[in-house]
Amino acid sequence: MKARVFVSPKSTVLDPQGQTVRSALNGLGYHSIAEVRQGKYFDIAIAEGVTREQAQKDVETIAHEVLANPVIEEYRVELVD
Amino acid sequence: MKARVFVSPKSTVLDPQGQTVRSALNGLGYHSIAEVRQGKYFDIAIAEGVTREQAQKDVETIAHEVLANPVIEEYRVELVD
Repeated sequence: MKARVFVSPKSTVLDPQGQTVRSALNGLGYHSIAEVRQGKYFDIAIAEGVTREQAQKDVETIAHEVLANPVIEEYRVELVD
Repeated sequence: MKARVFVSPKSTVLDPQGQTVRSALNGLGYHSIAEVRQGKYFDIAIAEGVTREQAQKDVETIAHEVLANPVIEEYRVELVD
């Protein structure tokens, strides 16, 4: 089983990395780009023999406790078979 | 219109960041985690008045030339309305 966790800055939080990418792209001549926000994701392989429920629970906990900083970031968990 | 670009290390390339996350998670007691690979993604807002074809072309070019390093990374482009 595989899980994917997406982590991005909350929409109310400034994203200086994304702003830098946008202004670099505009500077390179890509004027069709209005906004860029950057996030990260984690492709997680779950060990054999773990139930779907357990995997969901573990990955949710990991996303909340380790991979994201819930003060400034939001995350989304997807389970893939 | 929105586009999303996912960039991850090629599967043949070592991903030390992902390996570090996996070993940290295992160390914290999450033994159900077999492997972690880390990637990044970009949420891109396209300016009004750009056609879907033009946006697709621009974002493909940007992904290839700027956002990813095609020598060691692979990328995937999604257009979202």
